[in-house]
Amino acid sequence: MGTELLSGQVNTHQAYLSTALNAAGLPLAREGSLPDDLAEITAAVREALKRSDALLLCGGLGPTFDDISREAVAAALGRSMRYRPALYARIKKKFSRYRLPVPEENKRQAFVIEGASVLPNPFGSAPGQLLRLRGGGSRVKLVALMPGPFSEMAPMFEAHILPRLRAAYARGRATAHLCVRMSGVPESVADEKLAFLTDDPAPGRSFTILSSDGQVSFHAAATEATARRAAAVLKVLRRRIYAAVGEHVFGEGAETLESAVGRRLRARSLTLAVAESCTGGWLGRRLTSVPGSSDYFICGVIAYSNRLKTKLLGVSGRTLARFGAVSSHCAREMAAGARRSCGATLGLSVTGVAGPGGGSRKKPVGLVYFGLDDGKRSAVIKARFSGNREVVRARAVAAALTLVLRRLKAPRAKEI
Amino acid sequence: MGTELLSGQVNTHQAYLSTALNAAGLPLAREGSLPDDLAEITAAVREALKRSDALLLCGGLGPTFDDISREAVAAALGRSMRYRPALYARIKKKFSRYRLPVPEENKRQAFVIEGASVLPNPFGSAPGQLLRLRGGGSRVKLVALMPGPFSEMAPMFEAHILPRLRAAYARGRATAHLCVRMSGVPESVADEKLAFLTDDPAPGRSFTILSSDGQVSFHAAATEATARRAAAVLKVLRRRIYAAVGEHVFGEGAETLESAVGRRLRARSLTLAVAESCTGGWLGRRLTSVPGSSDYFICGVIAYSNRLKTKLLGVSGRTLARFGAVSSHCAREMAAGARRSCGATLGLSVTGVAGPGGGSRKKPVGLVYFGLDDGKRSAVIKARFSGNREVVRARAVAAALTLVLRRLKAPRAKEI
Repeated sequence: MGTELLSGQVNTHQAYLSTALNAAGLPLAREGSLPDDLAEITAAVREALKRSDALLLCGGLGPTFDDISREAVAAALGRSMRYRPALYARIKKKFSRYRLPVPEENKRQAFVIEGASVLPNPFGSAPGQLLRLRGGGSRVKLVALMPGPFSEMAPMFEAHILPRLRAAYARGRATAHLCVRMSGVPESVADEKLAFLTDDPAPGRSFTILSSDGQVSFHAAATEATARRAAAVLKVLRRRIYAAVGEHVFGEGAETLESAVGRRLRARSLTLAVAESCTGGWLGRRLTSVPGSSDYFICGVIAYSNRLKTKLLGVSGRTLARFGAVSSHCAREMAAGARRSCGATLGLSVTGVAGPGGGSRKKPVGLVYFGLDDGKRSAVIKARFSGNREVVRARAVAAALTLVLRRLKAPRAKEI
Repeated sequence: MGTELLSGQVNTHQAYLSTALNAAGLPLAREGSLPDDLAEITAAVREALKRSDALLLCGGLGPTFDDISREAVAAALGRSMRYRPALYARIKKKFSRYRLPVPEENKRQAFVIEGASVLPNPFGSAPGQLLRLRGGGSRVKLVALMPGPFSEMAPMFEAHILPRLRAAYARGRATAHLCVRMSGVPESVADEKLAFLTDDPAPGRSFTILSSDGQVSFHAAATEATARRAAAVLKVLRRRIYAAVGEHVFGEGAETLESAVGRRLRARSLTLAVAESCTGGWLGRRLTSVPGSSDYFICGVIAYSNRLKTKLLGVSGRTLARFGAVSSHCAREMAAGARRSCGATLGLSVTGVAGPGGGSRKKPVGLVYFGLDDGKRSAVIKARFSGNREVVRARAVAAALTLVLRRLKAPRAKEI
């Protein structure tokens, strides 16, 4: 919902909510983006409540003129709204903590629909609201109003809304869910290897394959009458999935490439330093997105200029002159230099042509070299990525993380 | 439309189509994702045609059992479908070019709704279809059926559908659009300052305010009978917007904080080096996302450990022992060290507590210091951000970029 989504903003909420609901065995029946128009939203809320058991609204809870979800739901249900001074006091307190003046507009966020319970929002000023409606039948209908920003919506959904949806609609059915994370494999290859499962799924099984920036996620869900039976079915599915694509799997569930790398570094008491050129800090950013990453991530050098590759990483002038910065030689020396300068046990490097400019026939846009050095041995790999500057960079970061992961997974005897 | 979009797939079509339509002065009134269910799609098509002038359907033109857009539109309009042997021959020819056998299923793609014109699809097997309906009034309604894959949909939309939408609905109207980008101001404050425009917009004016990660965008559009008049109205709006929030504006249109910083660095022939702690490379990543950023961005040091802050950036052991890594003193020395070690004209630093761990009463999660050093003077600012680890980090990156921007904007005489 929201004019933003009709004006060019990418709808990230839809993918997130539909994945989470699917995993809970509560498939999303319909999704819509509406303009910030009171009459339109009111009519759509009425329509949706006729059709579905539950309605989730994202956005329109802010303090500004175009935030009208509260009003629309109240109008659709023929309910009034009440101003809650205590709620406003809480919002004011949040602002005062940051020594910000509270705009008069924020008072709007303290209006609550009659009969709604207020859902706390630890990451923003807009509280959520949840209504339980008794329809004509015995069945309860739930209406949830959540804030628009993803970082506020997702925690509220997980903590307060999903559990109530489960309790209301998933009784007598249990769904077990598994998400397997892969890297270093194209989506189409993973898809083909898993086709024996996805082509004609048995009743109660559902599968989704998703890919982004060099990573592939495979979701499998089994719905049965009891949790025990669902878990048993899932166990069999899991075995079959690993038999097909296990070599590419780095983790399950919420595991990310960077958390998998971190887990393995920590388990072996290793430390990592990175030297980045074309990725410009992105590799460091991903590694440090994991809480506690300072245990194993020591340092990164974003050596964008050749001079700094020499000064900070010790890449030899001869290497740069003879082979250039985008070369296996340079990648190798960058990895060794990062390890040495930062005093880490492992050094990882990325150097390439992200584009759009800077490409040549011998070194086209998308060409990237990766180096990994542990003081005794070093390895270099070469890859060519398609896509625009940001896609090439994102894929290079995933490939660099995959390289470390493979090194940490592989038995020590095997040459990297 | 399509079950995929209700099962976790990201909806890229919505952002693309809404942007393209908005730019043409044909705002998207509503968007929806429907399950692959004939009755639901048929009902939704009927509803949409009551509400809107034009209806764009993406997907459901493939050869498989769940591709039912053709059937649904035909049912909604009470029209039949005709099998076109010539169309099937063309589809077969496409397959033979790649020496692929033609699955029997593909015959479905040769069925055309009565009265529809066929739109060629150079990038796939599914042809598009376009219907012009004469409603009760004199106004024409358009229904377009486009293939689901983005790479097939977008070219068909641009070549065949957008021109006909323009001709049918945008004649005698022209829209001028402006997007103003701000940073260093909370959304609610910007909103309050712009309330005189947005509270009661005149006919033909529309406004949207959006915020993400410390940046605020304000969109203004003016629709008039001629392009000239729309541009004149927008000029006046622009002046009024700048009078209200000009101090926070860093650019317009596609300008980002990092491209604005880059433009100003380049204009003054300055170079920048960064020293990052809690942002872990994110600042470098954003600065280097701009093509050609190697002209002014020299180097970054992600000094995650105290030891490396001393070794690579020259932060004194005494500073670290006495004030800690998250302190104004450390931020100042990090900025100076980055400038010096990398040989840049400006050094920028970030050090803070991103959380969730590592906070204390004196140094809570969200506390971040920024340093800026040009060799003669240095400045330090302190901020406290709310949100989880990634939100704190994203806001810190935006604040760091805003700090440089202000320094480059301010007259030289003014102390930073």
